[in-house]
Amino acid sequence: MSKLNVTQKLIKSHLIKGEMKPGTEIGLKIDQALLQDATGTLVQLELEAMGLTKAQTEVAVQYVDHNLLQTDYKNADDHLFLLSAAQRFGLWYSRPGNGVSHPVHMERFGKPGKTLVGSDSHSCAAGSLGMLAIGTGGLDVAAAIAGQPYFVKMPQVMGVKLTGKLPDWVSAKDVILEMLRRHDVKGGVGKIIEYYGDGLKHLSAMDRHVIANMGAELGATTTVFPSDKETKRFLKSQKREDDWQEILADEGCEYDLHDEIVLDELVPLIALPTSPGNVVPVREVEGKKISQVVIGSSANPGLRDFWVAGAIVKDKAVNNDVSFDVNPTSRQIIQNMIDNRAFANLIKAGARFHQSGCMGCIGMGQAPASGTISLRTMPRNFPDRSGTKDDQVHLCSPETAAASALTGKITDPRDMEKIYDMKYPKFKYPELHIIKEDMLVGPPEDGSDVKLEKGPNIKSLPYIEPLQEKYSIPVLLKMGDNISTDEILKAGAEVLPFRSNLPEISKFAYTVIDESFYDRAMKAKTEHGGHVVVAKDNYAQGSSREHAAIAPKYLGQMAVIANSYARIAWQNLVNFGIVPLEFIDIKDYDKIEQGDIVTIKNLREDIEARNNIKVIVRKENGEKHTFETRHSMSDRQINILLKGGIINEFKERIEQEELGD
Amino acid sequence: MSKLNVTQKLIKSHLIKGEMKPGTEIGLKIDQALLQDATGTLVQLELEAMGLTKAQTEVAVQYVDHNLLQTDYKNADDHLFLLSAAQRFGLWYSRPGNGVSHPVHMERFGKPGKTLVGSDSHSCAAGSLGMLAIGTGGLDVAAAIAGQPYFVKMPQVMGVKLTGKLPDWVSAKDVILEMLRRHDVKGGVGKIIEYYGDGLKHLSAMDRHVIANMGAELGATTTVFPSDKETKRFLKSQKREDDWQEILADEGCEYDLHDEIVLDELVPLIALPTSPGNVVPVREVEGKKISQVVIGSSANPGLRDFWVAGAIVKDKAVNNDVSFDVNPTSRQIIQNMIDNRAFANLIKAGARFHQSGCMGCIGMGQAPASGTISLRTMPRNFPDRSGTKDDQVHLCSPETAAASALTGKITDPRDMEKIYDMKYPKFKYPELHIIKEDMLVGPPEDGSDVKLEKGPNIKSLPYIEPLQEKYSIPVLLKMGDNISTDEILKAGAEVLPFRSNLPEISKFAYTVIDESFYDRAMKAKTEHGGHVVVAKDNYAQGSSREHAAIAPKYLGQMAVIANSYARIAWQNLVNFGIVPLEFIDIKDYDKIEQGDIVTIKNLREDIEARNNIKVIVRKENGEKHTFETRHSMSDRQINILLKGGIINEFKERIEQEELGD
Repeated sequence: MSKLNVTQKLIKSHLIKGEMKPGTEIGLKIDQALLQDATGTLVQLELEAMGLTKAQTEVAVQYVDHNLLQTDYKNADDHLFLLSAAQRFGLWYSRPGNGVSHPVHMERFGKPGKTLVGSDSHSCAAGSLGMLAIGTGGLDVAAAIAGQPYFVKMPQVMGVKLTGKLPDWVSAKDVILEMLRRHDVKGGVGKIIEYYGDGLKHLSAMDRHVIANMGAELGATTTVFPSDKETKRFLKSQKREDDWQEILADEGCEYDLHDEIVLDELVPLIALPTSPGNVVPVREVEGKKISQVVIGSSANPGLRDFWVAGAIVKDKAVNNDVSFDVNPTSRQIIQNMIDNRAFANLIKAGARFHQSGCMGCIGMGQAPASGTISLRTMPRNFPDRSGTKDDQVHLCSPETAAASALTGKITDPRDMEKIYDMKYPKFKYPELHIIKEDMLVGPPEDGSDVKLEKGPNIKSLPYIEPLQEKYSIPVLLKMGDNISTDEILKAGAEVLPFRSNLPEISKFAYTVIDESFYDRAMKAKTEHGGHVVVAKDNYAQGSSREHAAIAPKYLGQMAVIANSYARIAWQNLVNFGIVPLEFIDIKDYDKIEQGDIVTIKNLREDIEARNNIKVIVRKENGEKHTFETRHSMSDRQINILLKGGIINEFKERIEQEELGD
Repeated sequence: MSKLNVTQKLIKSHLIKGEMKPGTEIGLKIDQALLQDATGTLVQLELEAMGLTKAQTEVAVQYVDHNLLQTDYKNADDHLFLLSAAQRFGLWYSRPGNGVSHPVHMERFGKPGKTLVGSDSHSCAAGSLGMLAIGTGGLDVAAAIAGQPYFVKMPQVMGVKLTGKLPDWVSAKDVILEMLRRHDVKGGVGKIIEYYGDGLKHLSAMDRHVIANMGAELGATTTVFPSDKETKRFLKSQKREDDWQEILADEGCEYDLHDEIVLDELVPLIALPTSPGNVVPVREVEGKKISQVVIGSSANPGLRDFWVAGAIVKDKAVNNDVSFDVNPTSRQIIQNMIDNRAFANLIKAGARFHQSGCMGCIGMGQAPASGTISLRTMPRNFPDRSGTKDDQVHLCSPETAAASALTGKITDPRDMEKIYDMKYPKFKYPELHIIKEDMLVGPPEDGSDVKLEKGPNIKSLPYIEPLQEKYSIPVLLKMGDNISTDEILKAGAEVLPFRSNLPEISKFAYTVIDESFYDRAMKAKTEHGGHVVVAKDNYAQGSSREHAAIAPKYLGQMAVIANSYARIAWQNLVNFGIVPLEFIDIKDYDKIEQGDIVTIKNLREDIEARNNIKVIVRKENGEKHTFETRHSMSDRQINILLKGGIINEFKERIEQEELGD
C-alpha cells in the first residue's frame, strides 16, 4: 500500500492506534473540534465535569446556529453560558447570527490535511477542503478537545470518479442527489466517499462542500476531497492562502469500492418526501403546486448558491401563493451578498430574509402549511422534521428552488430559458471575499478564572460513583426487542428545553414505556443504591443521543441486561458508567421480572478478568434463580466503566499527571 | 364651536350618531380598517359567519406581522387562510414578511381626513397623517368592514403644544417618553391627544408616527396630528401626493385640556422595567451592563430610525456581550436601507437581522437572557412580555440603543461625541422612496367564489341561537369579585394556538377556576340547553379578548348574573348573545349556589320592555328563592342580544336588504 488515496493519507498521518484495515478499530489524533449549541451545552458541561483546563486541539470552535428563535429565556441563557464556557476552556466562540457552523468553519478555520470531529452530523462537510471530518456524539468531541484520540472502525473507501462538466442549470446539489439516487440513505454506511477525477476542476470548493455535507445522508462515515488548486484559490479568496497544502491521491492508488459520474449527463434532480434517497428527475414531478421555497442551509451555503437564486428572480416577483424564505448561512455571506446585489435581488423579488442559522432545516421555524409542498435546498426531508405533521418537503438545487418560486409550481430550471428568455447565470467567484471575523470571539491566553454563566436552566453534571464490587438492586423495567432511544428518553418540545438540566430531563426517562419510572427509580436509588433494567435484542436503537444513557445513570442505573445492543448506545452506556451485560442463554430472560431483586457480587473483579458475571435473581416470594451473563467491552472500555465513566477516567488521569509534575 | 381643532374636524366629518360632547356616545362612519394576523383570523371567521359579501370600507387590509416564526403548521395555515379570506371578502392582503401593519399602512394606504379602526392597539399610529385611527376589538372591526358605524364615548381633546427644535442626539421617541414621564400609562384614558405648534415643522411624518404609536401607552383613545406640508412631503416621497389634503386646526380653536413641550429642553430618556410610564433621563441609569439591544418595531419603524442606528455603529463592532437584534419594519424599508447603506452598516457592525414583523415586541422571539438588561426601541416593557420571566426590558430611542450596543452598557448617546469623536448623524429624507407594492395582494373585483383555505386548526364559527323566552338551566359556577378574562379563558402557549378553533379553545374556559367546567357545561348544554354563571363585582376585568365571551357562549352560556361588569367585557357578552344580568340587591348573591337550577320566564319580553327580570332559583332539596335582576343595555344592544349577538343581527339585516331588492 505504497500508493495512497487521499483518505488513506489523512488517516495515516493521524493514526495513533490500530491498522488501516477496513473493519478494525483505529485511534486517530484529532486536530480540530466543532460544536454547535444544541449539543454543545452538554459537551461544555462535560468539559466542566472533566475539570479540563484548556482545549488540547489546535482549533476548537463553539458555534451557535440551532437555537436562535429565543421564544423564552433558555436559548439566550445558553448563548451566555456557551460564551463563558468557550472562554474558560479555550475555544473560539462564534456568536449567534454569525452563521451555520459548517460553512463558517470552512471559511475561517478549515485546513487541508487536518482531522476534525464535530458534535453535528454534517461535520463531514469539512471534507470539501481535504480534511478528514467526522460527526459524532458529544462526549467523543469532549474527549477530543481534552486531547484524547478518536476511535472508529476503519471504513472502506469508495472512490467516485467525476468526469466532464455540469450542464447549464445543473449544480453540485444535483451531484449529491445523483449519489443518493444510486445508493440511497444506507449506501454509505461504513464507508468514506472519496471524489477524484477530471470533473473536479469544475467544482468549486463550496460546490464540494454541498456534496460532502450531504454525504451524511448516504450514511457515510465522511466524505473526502483532495486539496488541489481550487482549494488553494478558495483559501486565497478567504485571505488564508498560507493554510493551504496540496493533498492529492497518488497516481495508481486503490479504492475498496468504485463508482463514476459523468457530470455532463446529469439533469436537475429532486428528493421527494420523505427521504433524501427518494430522488427523481425534476421533470417527473414538474407542475405540482407549491406553497413554500427555502434557500440556504449547510447543504447549499455558498455565495454562488444565493447569487444564482438572486439572478434567477432578478426584477421578477415570486408567485403570490409562495412564501420565499431565504436563510443566509453566515454574516460574511450576507455582506458579500449585499456587495454583489444578490441580497437586493432576492429581497426585491419578495424574499423573507431570516437570521443566519439552521432555521427550518432542524425544524426551528418556517414550518410549511399543512398538506402543501415545500421546496428546500436543505439536506433532509424526514417526516415531520419541518415542524408540520405529514409535511411534503422536497429537496433540490437553488436553481430548481428559485425557478419554482417564480412559477408557483415545481419547475425544471432549464425552462427559465423559454419562459423568461433567460440564459443560465454563471457566477464569477470573487478574487477576495469580504471577510467577517469580529463575530468570532477568540479564547483568552488563560481562561481559568472565567466564571461559567449559568442561567436557571443550566445545571452542572453530577458526580458519578465508580462501579462497586457488589449490588443488590431491583429490576425496574423489563422490556422487549428494539427499544429505541426515543422510548428511553423522548425528544420533542416538552423535553428538549431541558437539554442542559440533567435533574429535569431525567424526569422523562422511560416515560414512554412507564410513567411511574422516575418515582420508582428515585426510590430505588435511596433504598437500594440503584437499579437495573432488562431488555431483549437491539436495545437503545435509533438516535445517538447521550441523554438516553446519562439520564438513566443519574437515576441510579447500574446495569442493563439485554440480549444485544445498538452500537452507539452501547458505547454511550459504557461512557457514562452503566454496565451493558449480555444474556448468555436467552432463556434466562424468562427468569427475571420487574420487581425482582438482582444481586451481583465480585462485579469489578469479574469484569476486569473477563469472567462471566453471575446474576442472582430473588423474587418477592423468596424464589431464587441464578444465571450467568457476559460483556464484550474492550480493555479501554473496561477501564472507563470501572471508574464510573469517561469523565471520571479523564479526571483521574489529569490528577495523576498533575501529581507527577 | 365654529373654530375646530383637528380632532373635532375629523369627528364632525364622520359623525353619524350623537353629539361631540365629551362622555356621550357617538357613532362614526369608518373609512379604513386594519387587521393583523393574531386577531385577524377570528375577525375573518366573524365575517364568514356574518355572510359578508364584500368589505364596505374604502380600504381594508389584512396584515400578517405577528406570527411569523412558524414553529409548526398553524401559522403557515393561518397565512393561507387569511389570503383566501381577504380575497373572498374584498380586503387587501399584506404578505408575511411585507412588514408591520402600522408603518406599511401609513406608507401605502394612510390618507389625511380619513377614519380607521384596527384590531391592534397601536392602530392609533395612523394619527400621524391627520387621520382619526382607533384600535379596538375584532368584532368592532368586523362590523366596520361590514359597513357599520363605530361607537365610542366622545373623548376629551388634550392639545399638546410643541415649540422649538429637538437637540442633537434626541429624537421623537424622547418626545413620547417625556409625555409618558409626565402623564404615566393612565394619563391619556378617555382622551385624544392632539399635537400642534411650531415645533411640529421639525418632526417628520415618521417621527409623528413614533409619537402617535406610543400614545397607546398613555391609554389615549388615539393621537392626532394635523395634515400639513410635512405630511404632503411624506406622501409625495411615497408617490401618493394626490392622497394629501391639508387639515389644520382653526386659529383660535379650543382644547379641553392643555400641555406644552419645549423640544429644545428634552434629553435622552429611557423607560425602566416594567412600565412604559417609568421614565427617567438616560443619565440616571447609565453604565449598567446590558446583554441585548433591539432596534425596530412599530414604535421606531422609520427609515431614519434604522439609518441613524447604522450611522452610529458604522465601521465599529458591537460589544461582545451584546446581541444586537435589528427588526426591520417592512420590506420597503429594507430596500431603502440597502440603498442608503444603513443595512450594510448594521450588518457589518454585528447586527442579527430578522424578518420584518412584530417579533420580540409581542414576545415572538429574541427573548433576552435571564436577569439581564435588554434595551429596545419598542413600545412596551410589561413584565414577561419579552418571553423571559422577570425580564428587565428598557425602552429608548434608536440613538440610545445603538450607542449602548457599542459600549455594552446603558449609554447617553450624546457621549458618542467624546467617545468616538462623532457628530450627530443627520438624516436627509429621500425625495422619493423605493416603493414596494408587489407583496400587497389586492382584492379581486368579485371574490364571492373564492374558497376559504382552512387548515385542520381553523374552524368556522358555529351558529348562535337567538335568545329564548324561557330557560331552566343550572348554575355552573359561583365566583367572587374581580374575576379576570384570564380566569375565564387563560392566555399562554397552551391556549393561543387554538385562536381560530372555537371547539378546541372552549375546552379551556374557566379551567383556571374549575377544571371540570368544560365537561359540566357540555352536559348542561345537552340536558338543559345551557347554563348561567354567577359573580360579584367587576366581572371579566382585564384584557379585551373576545374569546372570554365567545367560548362560554359556545358552551351554552345564556346569562351571567353579577353585581357589576368590566366595560369592554360587558360589551363583548352582549355582542356574543350572553345576557349580562345585574343583582338589584346584592344580598340575593347569597341565595344562589352552584348546582341550583335557575328558571327565567318572559326573558325576551322583559328585556325589551326594560322590566326587571325575575329569577327563580330551585335548590336540589326543592327549596325555592325568587329575586329580581336588571340590565343596563342600550336599545341598540337589546336588539343585538335578542338576536343572539351582533353576527346574527348583521346577517338578518343583510337578508332583509336582499329581500328588499
